[in-house]
Amino acid sequence: MVIERGFEKERLSREEIEELEGLARLARGDIIKMTTLAGSGHPGGALSSLNILLLLYSKARIDPQNPLWPERDRIVISHGHISPGVYAALGRVGFFDPRAAVATFRLAGSPFEGHVVKKVPGVEWDTGNLGQGLSAGCGFALAARLKGLGYRTFVVMSDGEQTKGQVAEARRFAVKYGLRDLTVIIDYNHIQISGRIEEVMPSRIKEGYLVDGWDVMEIDGHDFQEIYQAIREALQKDRPVAILAHTVMGKGISFMEDEREYHGRALTEEEYRKAIEELGLEDDLQEYAKMRKEEVFGSIPPRPLPEVPRVDGGVPLTYEAGEKVGNRAAFGKALVDLATRNIERGVPVVAFDCDLASSVRVEEFGKRFPNYFFEGGIQEHNTATIAGALSREGVLTFFADFGVFGIDEVYNQQRLNDMNETNLKLVCTHTGLDVGQDGKTHHCIDYLGVMRNLFGFKVIVPADPNQADRAIRYAATHWGNFLVTTGREKEPVITTEEGRPFFDDSYTFRYGKGDLLRPGDMGAIVTMGGMASRAIRAWERLKEEGIRVMVINISCPFSLDRELLRQAASTGLIITYEDHHVETGLGCEVAKLIADEGWRVRFRRLGITAYGLSGRPEELLRIQGLDESSLTEAVKKEVRRG
Amino acid sequence: MVIERGFEKERLSREEIEELEGLARLARGDIIKMTTLAGSGHPGGALSSLNILLLLYSKARIDPQNPLWPERDRIVISHGHISPGVYAALGRVGFFDPRAAVATFRLAGSPFEGHVVKKVPGVEWDTGNLGQGLSAGCGFALAARLKGLGYRTFVVMSDGEQTKGQVAEARRFAVKYGLRDLTVIIDYNHIQISGRIEEVMPSRIKEGYLVDGWDVMEIDGHDFQEIYQAIREALQKDRPVAILAHTVMGKGISFMEDEREYHGRALTEEEYRKAIEELGLEDDLQEYAKMRKEEVFGSIPPRPLPEVPRVDGGVPLTYEAGEKVGNRAAFGKALVDLATRNIERGVPVVAFDCDLASSVRVEEFGKRFPNYFFEGGIQEHNTATIAGALSREGVLTFFADFGVFGIDEVYNQQRLNDMNETNLKLVCTHTGLDVGQDGKTHHCIDYLGVMRNLFGFKVIVPADPNQADRAIRYAATHWGNFLVTTGREKEPVITTEEGRPFFDDSYTFRYGKGDLLRPGDMGAIVTMGGMASRAIRAWERLKEEGIRVMVINISCPFSLDRELLRQAASTGLIITYEDHHVETGLGCEVAKLIADEGWRVRFRRLGITAYGLSGRPEELLRIQGLDESSLTEAVKKEVRRG
Repeated sequence: MVIERGFEKERLSREEIEELEGLARLARGDIIKMTTLAGSGHPGGALSSLNILLLLYSKARIDPQNPLWPERDRIVISHGHISPGVYAALGRVGFFDPRAAVATFRLAGSPFEGHVVKKVPGVEWDTGNLGQGLSAGCGFALAARLKGLGYRTFVVMSDGEQTKGQVAEARRFAVKYGLRDLTVIIDYNHIQISGRIEEVMPSRIKEGYLVDGWDVMEIDGHDFQEIYQAIREALQKDRPVAILAHTVMGKGISFMEDEREYHGRALTEEEYRKAIEELGLEDDLQEYAKMRKEEVFGSIPPRPLPEVPRVDGGVPLTYEAGEKVGNRAAFGKALVDLATRNIERGVPVVAFDCDLASSVRVEEFGKRFPNYFFEGGIQEHNTATIAGALSREGVLTFFADFGVFGIDEVYNQQRLNDMNETNLKLVCTHTGLDVGQDGKTHHCIDYLGVMRNLFGFKVIVPADPNQADRAIRYAATHWGNFLVTTGREKEPVITTEEGRPFFDDSYTFRYGKGDLLRPGDMGAIVTMGGMASRAIRAWERLKEEGIRVMVINISCPFSLDRELLRQAASTGLIITYEDHHVETGLGCEVAKLIADEGWRVRFRRLGITAYGLSGRPEELLRIQGLDESSLTEAVKKEVRRG
Repeated sequence: MVIERGFEKERLSREEIEELEGLARLARGDIIKMTTLAGSGHPGGALSSLNILLLLYSKARIDPQNPLWPERDRIVISHGHISPGVYAALGRVGFFDPRAAVATFRLAGSPFEGHVVKKVPGVEWDTGNLGQGLSAGCGFALAARLKGLGYRTFVVMSDGEQTKGQVAEARRFAVKYGLRDLTVIIDYNHIQISGRIEEVMPSRIKEGYLVDGWDVMEIDGHDFQEIYQAIREALQKDRPVAILAHTVMGKGISFMEDEREYHGRALTEEEYRKAIEELGLEDDLQEYAKMRKEEVFGSIPPRPLPEVPRVDGGVPLTYEAGEKVGNRAAFGKALVDLATRNIERGVPVVAFDCDLASSVRVEEFGKRFPNYFFEGGIQEHNTATIAGALSREGVLTFFADFGVFGIDEVYNQQRLNDMNETNLKLVCTHTGLDVGQDGKTHHCIDYLGVMRNLFGFKVIVPADPNQADRAIRYAATHWGNFLVTTGREKEPVITTEEGRPFFDDSYTFRYGKGDLLRPGDMGAIVTMGGMASRAIRAWERLKEEGIRVMVINISCPFSLDRELLRQAASTGLIITYEDHHVETGLGCEVAKLIADEGWRVRFRRLGITAYGLSGRPEELLRIQGLDESSLTEAVKKEVRRG
């Protein structure tokens, strides 16, 4: 290749342009071939974005031989459906054999999926659901700053997705935090699936960026020299820049140009032949078809796990019996401790907040570590995605929010984080009817039911501040996505029958291990979170009446402690007891275990059966038959019946 | 009252202003009293919004004696946490006895909840999660047009929530559809929970509205004359208008003014006394405390159900055996039929799309009924909320989208719709691995797991186009929120053993009724949706080998057919079989039933156990052990083991 990497030179040389034009012609052929062969895909946008992609992948500080080089520039493709263009460009620039992409695009088992995935070398972030890419880019740009790396972040986007609200949220965040090394390039081809963007949903893209404080440039998105110079100029600016690259959908194939139908449809074989002839390329579709049949996936090595931060988990704090701390506060303290220990050691520890710092107990952290605290404002979608992207980059990343905002509002953002195998530590305070007077909109009673759908997220529901402390340290020191939940009210310290802290210095948190809080043989109450202390009080009342039921705490509902629950089942009666939607929470998980195992046990689920009212938690629990007295009565009734 | 309703007069009279000032003084006292008594709430914003609320509730075309008068102006409070201001203003204007609100604010069982709820006369839409109010307002404004009512819609918002992306989405929709009778009034007090809005997340509010094509006015938000005149002027404009009402947080109580801490905290009793003295009001807190103790809720009648459209469900279509239609197409046809029958009869039938009209099969509807088709663009959050609000207003409202966009991306919007007891008909095409080559981001494999958390939504998963046709007509003719899902590929017509359509003219869809597709006594396959036809093919194979298992189709997984499943259990073996996350779908629902009932039955769940790849559906199913052969083998293995 004659192309030299970097944006130092003022202009592209004639030779460089010629080489790029040559690559573009081949890549156009690749795009047409792979979509025709697969019988589906999005060739139109792939062709309009192509020259932008080729320029970026040729000039950015990335290394096809070492695609995960830590100091590389990060290139995010937000409109993941233009994957044919991305694969063709990466292949032609040397990241892999482009024939592998052509032959196996959209074939089950191939890395060359319908929407871009980072299984493919050169791809940084799996996308597909529009509007999230700029937020991911903000995350990568933040990582560069926090880790003192000088790389730049580029985000390529479509024009259609600019109307997603999350894009404007990301723009504001980028300006607030001065992410000057962030550059957006928009493939402005004016066509989305349903028609011209001006008709589908009018939007003043340029003015939107300007209002939010970005610089904007406009160029011909097919002219390599213009693309090069715009990016070069953008990198010298003191603020984030959006480059509006005017393009033509289907560029390079006469009959596809500016034609909406090719947004999301592959060419027929006849159209294909016409296109290949126009491009002056060889028609080798049958050879590729043969390779496809043989499932030749090329030699793409599996992507290694991203950088795992080597976190010092510190020494657990033990709160004494009767201490009024609560799980929220225990999280806040553990966070400060983790930051104190790790930041100095070179492991950045970061917390994101969405305008609730005091309530979610990250205020103290923010005061102590202002450079590591990010206030995302009332922009949860953007914040969730930024936190996810950052967490993959060797930064221990916490995102603290109310359950309803950190889970319900941003479920699809957490879902994409999870698909991206991020390392996010999500802490949701304010779950359950325990939220109380703020009423139903703020009662997150579905944190298990919603998160259960994500294959990667581990969820921990600590019973008291001691378990919360340990759960936070566990999540911090173990790779992967964790959700740790707490209530709003102060959960009391759980004690042994003798009155000592149950989760004391000798206790080690293990993911999936249940806790036998109280013994008994006439039945078992299986509970979690703040309800555990209520169950213990019910146990005491029942004991006085000669009814001995065991009390089991399940802190990891998605990884049930089978042995402990088998013991519970052997009593002949299991009652689950939770401050959660009764159909989707702990009772649901235990039901599956009982049915799967075929255990013979009487089973009753106590949980939330209607949206909550606005009132004190005890009242709300009572109304739904979930206070201590209701539990006691329910146990008595079941024990007597049995 | 000397105040005359309406905005015809050029100015407020001096007497009107005096009366408003008098009401404001009393209402300020109400706000302080109710929050102090409850010990929580948001007095700061309630005080800054108060004069806006009082002016609106006094002047808008609403009737305190008849709060649900169909032609009334609609007033949406987007920042629901300022409920003390809303309750005080409504009470002082005559909607109810304000003392009921003061005495019972945030008391479990009282209608005067922490965030505004429409149990309270005068409130139109339950809010609490910020950023959704303007979209709801768009829905009400659309309803006025569709039903030929001349009412106006006002949306009162906070400044902090302007950064939510959904707000900009709603602005664009309002301009695209020329909602000139929509007026926004922003309480611009510059303070949000965490500090000054300029510091928490800088945002150029005025310019944002201008860029999106709105008119903007700026006024003193405490000056009744200015508020009146601005609204009057706004109503004469030919486009939506945003009024930036500059205010002071905590207005009217000297020590609260511009003080962030009063955003979300009630006054102490000492502060309360100081405030009441400043206002020159009587300190009657003890009397209210007594009423609170006695739980005097006043005499608020329960709000009746909203207008139920009298929909003609038409005559079901029966597709013949072998006809290649698919459930998506069946939906599209049923929709056109419903529109043809009902629009002429005066029942508006509307469909919303998010840039996928052709894929979700609403294109034909859009061509035939352009005035009833709304293209929301790539702005799903806004679209989901608009559709919800509109559906409460006597308009039969469909929102069609891919599962991942209509459910996963907008879960919290559907959640708030559900809390608002809307009448939305959500149709999600493209669910399951059946989506195929678009890959994991587009595989909605959690539609049951996610929607199960909403108490009001009924979900129907039709097995074939005949059942789909009937399910759509059922949802259209029954009040409440329905989700109907389909796959992407064409589901074949299910037949009887004799080869006739199973769901034929003699079949009537009943919510909660299962279908015994094939008989058997050695076990039962329990399935749904597009997997039903695969189960039947497996049944045929198994039959040849002498294995007779029944095949049961469950179209309503949230309302299981207990009797039919009891029969299934009596075979001694149940295998659930679904194109859905194995932990949160049909198998999960059946597991709960088995555990709850204590049925002795061997139980096995077949479903999705990892994010899908990108490839043809049959391949993806095979990889996850869900194709026809895998099912056949699994059944054989279990039958032999039993």
